[in-house]
Amino acid sequence: MTSESGGTLREVGEFALIERITAADGLNETVLLGPGDDTALIRCAPGGVLVTCDVLVEGVHFRRDWSTPVDIGRRAAAASLADVAAMGGQPTSLVVGFGAPADLPAAWALACTAGLREELALVGAVLVGGDVVEAPQVVLSVTAMGSPAPSGPVLRSGAQPGDVVALAGRVGWAAAGLQLLSRGFRSPKVLVDAHRYPVPPYGAGPAAAEAGATAMIDVSDGLVADARHVAEASGVAIELDTSGWDIPEPMQAAAAAYNIDPHDWMLDGGDDHALLATFPASARLPEPFVAIGRVVAGDPEVRVDGTARSGGGHAHFR
Amino acid sequence: MTSESGGTLREVGEFALIERITAADGLNETVLLGPGDDTALIRCAPGGVLVTCDVLVEGVHFRRDWSTPVDIGRRAAAASLADVAAMGGQPTSLVVGFGAPADLPAAWALACTAGLREELALVGAVLVGGDVVEAPQVVLSVTAMGSPAPSGPVLRSGAQPGDVVALAGRVGWAAAGLQLLSRGFRSPKVLVDAHRYPVPPYGAGPAAAEAGATAMIDVSDGLVADARHVAEASGVAIELDTSGWDIPEPMQAAAAAYNIDPHDWMLDGGDDHALLATFPASARLPEPFVAIGRVVAGDPEVRVDGTARSGGGHAHFR
Repeated sequence: MTSESGGTLREVGEFALIERITAADGLNETVLLGPGDDTALIRCAPGGVLVTCDVLVEGVHFRRDWSTPVDIGRRAAAASLADVAAMGGQPTSLVVGFGAPADLPAAWALACTAGLREELALVGAVLVGGDVVEAPQVVLSVTAMGSPAPSGPVLRSGAQPGDVVALAGRVGWAAAGLQLLSRGFRSPKVLVDAHRYPVPPYGAGPAAAEAGATAMIDVSDGLVADARHVAEASGVAIELDTSGWDIPEPMQAAAAAYNIDPHDWMLDGGDDHALLATFPASARLPEPFVAIGRVVAGDPEVRVDGTARSGGGHAHFR
Repeated sequence: MTSESGGTLREVGEFALIERITAADGLNETVLLGPGDDTALIRCAPGGVLVTCDVLVEGVHFRRDWSTPVDIGRRAAAASLADVAAMGGQPTSLVVGFGAPADLPAAWALACTAGLREELALVGAVLVGGDVVEAPQVVLSVTAMGSPAPSGPVLRSGAQPGDVVALAGRVGWAAAGLQLLSRGFRSPKVLVDAHRYPVPPYGAGPAAAEAGATAMIDVSDGLVADARHVAEASGVAIELDTSGWDIPEPMQAAAAAYNIDPHDWMLDGGDDHALLATFPASARLPEPFVAIGRVVAGDPEVRVDGTARSGGGHAHFR
């Protein structure tokens, strides 16, 4: 055994690491049984429990020299919490599978789970269990659970011709940040930080459900790619209009420096975890949604400023 | 795109792979919304939902040249389903995080998820969602959910002095099989198969809860190591008596060939996912539990045939 902050996972050992990770656990009214037994036990809303899983792999999703362990924990939690929000739901709890090499500093693992908890605290959810295993690189598998909106989950399949398409949150920031890091730059910091961890508009999810959203999706692959998922699930076409878009100042500067059209970042960049939703034309858009297009009848596709846009967005194994 | 059975993950692509995996999905009465949206939605028992997570990593937990993809899928599902059974619960659903190299044959990935489903079918549970990502090696992260027994979850902490300690299922088989494989042997097949995937006594979990089990645990680290978890959580000592144990014939043969005491496999070998439970002395042990010891007052420890036994069992990062 080593001092509180020192030592590798090999020196600290699996069970002492789990003890340190779970020592910090808070509970909420949803948690009937937290870490320490073979399973956790969660109370459910009358509508059931939403559940979603995301895996982040070192070297694929993040690099330890580009992000802090807190950043990586926050990002891992955000990926799943944003999925719950995209159903109009309220996240309640999370389990984490944590894989890491034996020579990883235990302090890194503890900071990473502290990052998970920071993100969970933003939505009032808690860590209720998990698994710790050896792996050749850091792997974080997070499964988030949550309560659906009283009106039921908002699916991808409910968009109707005539609906307004609206966006809450940032798009293109994480992609711009990743491109900067890939070229060896660490600024503008606001963009680089956006790659390190997203800032999903969690509250916008339940607000959209309450405002009558007909469809919603977490923008994780890219705005056009995820709009296409809604179009395909709903059997409609989606028209986006970029003419009114403000290009954020740091993105303008970076795009100019690299001779890149910032619209490409905003249309195809993933990992920002904005929420894209459709609303009846009569609905009042809840904050911070802004209208960016409309739903029309037709073959499922996404048109940007009148032109069908194919491809784009992130897909694994390419 | 490639033919139905051919191609690597790179050739098939993330979204087509997900489509093929989820095409086979059955549903059960618990599943209000299955794969295809940002989250699944599960109906809950009045007592809430049990949730547990296990991660299996290629090269750490399994090798692709020692196990078939179906074996690995079965084993991954079993690890979490057995945790639900160990709470006295009934598994209902599972989400899977699947990481793999881009050059993995898509047929391997599909066979692995078929293995998950085979195991799920044993308990009437279904696959409701997941995530597919690129990773340097195959990683399976499974999160199982289930319904607690009507009498509530059976914890590790309820063992009382005077209770009978009972075991359902096999111990030592997977460890023996792993040792055989590590030395280059592939027989006795029944032991090697036990490493490839366990045969947890799922039904014994709810049966134990109904029979009044005071504590229960999934034997995944090793019989003594997991008995120690119960002893520590309950603040009691556990005495095991091996004098009446039958050593299974294939284990006798393998142990003799390698000059190993088969009791070491049975006491310290993990990954068989037996269930270890404690019952009031007055309880009638449900099938297939057999008494193997008793709970006594005293400092938390495990004594085997009268001698305290420390260490043993599997721990990561060693």
